[in-house]
Amino acid sequence: MARLSNQLIVGVLGAFLIFYTFVYNIEPKIIYINTDGEPIDYSALAPLQKEQQWKTQQRENATFVSLARNSEMYQLVESIRRVEDRFNRKFHYDWVFLNDEPFSDEFKALTSSIVSGTAKYGLIPKEHWGYPDYIDQKKAKASRDKMKADNIIYGESESYRHMCRFESGFFFNHPLMLDYEWYWRVEPDVHIYCDVDYDLFKYMRENNKTYGFAISIHEFVKTIPTLWDTTKKFVEENPEVIAENNLIDFVSNDGGKSYNLCHFWSNFEIANMNFWRSDTYQKYFDYLDRSGGFFYERWGDAPVHSIAASLFLPKDQIHYFDDIGYRHGVYAQCPLNADLRYKNKCHCKPEDDFTFRGYSCGKQYFAAQGLVKPQEWVDYQ
Amino acid sequence: MARLSNQLIVGVLGAFLIFYTFVYNIEPKIIYINTDGEPIDYSALAPLQKEQQWKTQQRENATFVSLARNSEMYQLVESIRRVEDRFNRKFHYDWVFLNDEPFSDEFKALTSSIVSGTAKYGLIPKEHWGYPDYIDQKKAKASRDKMKADNIIYGESESYRHMCRFESGFFFNHPLMLDYEWYWRVEPDVHIYCDVDYDLFKYMRENNKTYGFAISIHEFVKTIPTLWDTTKKFVEENPEVIAENNLIDFVSNDGGKSYNLCHFWSNFEIANMNFWRSDTYQKYFDYLDRSGGFFYERWGDAPVHSIAASLFLPKDQIHYFDDIGYRHGVYAQCPLNADLRYKNKCHCKPEDDFTFRGYSCGKQYFAAQGLVKPQEWVDYQ
Repeated sequence: MARLSNQLIVGVLGAFLIFYTFVYNIEPKIIYINTDGEPIDYSALAPLQKEQQWKTQQRENATFVSLARNSEMYQLVESIRRVEDRFNRKFHYDWVFLNDEPFSDEFKALTSSIVSGTAKYGLIPKEHWGYPDYIDQKKAKASRDKMKADNIIYGESESYRHMCRFESGFFFNHPLMLDYEWYWRVEPDVHIYCDVDYDLFKYMRENNKTYGFAISIHEFVKTIPTLWDTTKKFVEENPEVIAENNLIDFVSNDGGKSYNLCHFWSNFEIANMNFWRSDTYQKYFDYLDRSGGFFYERWGDAPVHSIAASLFLPKDQIHYFDDIGYRHGVYAQCPLNADLRYKNKCHCKPEDDFTFRGYSCGKQYFAAQGLVKPQEWVDYQ
Repeated sequence: MARLSNQLIVGVLGAFLIFYTFVYNIEPKIIYINTDGEPIDYSALAPLQKEQQWKTQQRENATFVSLARNSEMYQLVESIRRVEDRFNRKFHYDWVFLNDEPFSDEFKALTSSIVSGTAKYGLIPKEHWGYPDYIDQKKAKASRDKMKADNIIYGESESYRHMCRFESGFFFNHPLMLDYEWYWRVEPDVHIYCDVDYDLFKYMRENNKTYGFAISIHEFVKTIPTLWDTTKKFVEENPEVIAENNLIDFVSNDGGKSYNLCHFWSNFEIANMNFWRSDTYQKYFDYLDRSGGFFYERWGDAPVHSIAASLFLPKDQIHYFDDIGYRHGVYAQCPLNADLRYKNKCHCKPEDDFTFRGYSCGKQYFAAQGLVKPQEWVDYQ
């Protein structure tokens, strides 16, 4: 052992080199742990869950957005809690809050503690929440007085009109929103009844969808007497805005002569803001805005968005979310198929589903899209 | 290279042996991944979360329990959803459902899809939901008629009395419950407003607690005219049941002469069933039962449980959960301290807290326990 031979040295070093190379290339043992500290057993998971659970989450450039007053804090927080519990705690998307007045410290402290992404607070500039100079305020007041006398809901409200105009034409250009491409709108008194285990924003992007909704409904005609005629004039002057294979049959039963009052209920929207930011939509909104209908009538952002989406988009870019179990106020969407409800852990009552009932526009939507209604629909009319 | 020398072979083998020994003893690099696919950074976690996240969950021998009718399915499921979202999805405790009638398939399918532990369904035997032969049913009916005339809530209901008697003396001996030591009772219209990130059952055991509550309140005296006198007679005959350092000052302002109507609101209880199964409590319940007060009056399980806990347990075994944010019906508990609310992600309104208001028994409880009220209590009276 006195003299180490060259061969011994070469052998030892060679062995180390070979062995080290093998070991270095062995993957570290990765144990996937869920939040209960339990190892995740992959053989038991469905492929989608597997994908979600092991891949580094690649989120879309998306945010939640809520327009809110300080006084609505607790009602909005209940909505946020429900959306977090059913969806966002898995994905941690940001949440933008917008207000025409500054948010209170309490509002910010409470909402930021509940939101699982980053919470951001924005003030709406006065030019987006007030009367433009081309509006005759006397005429606007006369209209409000008449609507109040006619008992039209929100008919006497100035702030409601500012809200509708803001949601129609400005929210997507707020500085805080410019950071994002997609949004999901959430309001007070919003319920989600099913577990949503897939990324809805990702679904929209991967399937080339631009506008998604949960509930459709007829509008009160007295709030929008001249909206359709104004739209028709805009289209006459700008015929190139009409998309091929659009969804005009959702909003008109006579090929566009008249409006059938159908619209997507905008308290739930998941959509791509590139559409609202497009020349087409911006021109349309400006045209509506200058006609004064937001103030001389009571045009809602819901029919405005819906008409634009139905005319200016190919219809396959519009998506109906039938698996979320959404409720706002008295109207709800609930999966009608029992097995689907159990699979998605939906705790809504199928009897509450509004989709195919008279005042809804679900039947018009399915017909316009050429979709087959779920077989259970006849029982929920 | 024609002939490998012995030294070369020894060198190579020796190197492999040494290297292998080192490598074998190196811990595999373990990466802990949460359900979002993000590596868990331990340095950032608080000790309690760390403990939960990496340790294999050691659950207590505990279950949720809900007494329910098929007709209450959706209301109960909303409660279950809230308890799951705020607590049980982290711990996966079982859920026992009990009914005096068989559960429908729909009830079982929906609840088992929502519960994150194992759901079990039990039928209550008729001897625990009916009239014992020692009850004079004519006398019982006369009492119900009088209470109905006096407008006492549930005064005319037979099933309400069966429910109170069952919850007082039998639920903890139902075959499905015998598998467990601890329970947390949940009813329809139950809300939890705060995130509960620690195991409440484990907390009870580690801190030697037997009975836990969230809300205390005064009873309607007309429902329990002779409950206290009957209790006193029982105690006279069985003086050994009185515990040292008990909580008699919670239920009596005069050292036990009369009952002050204070009790723990039993729609929320986290407790150890060994107490209800003990000789002392079984004897007490049997004594009450044979006196007929469940039927000739309208004795609730809440005052029965509360009196037993206050007299037969050392007071330090009773625990007030002040950090859950609990609501049932019109009464709620909400942490009064703002920082605590944000830290625990509570979305309740502190103004809704009932603890120190007149009809509650919170002040009596704090006094009897020698606890210091939170400094904010004066603002919420």
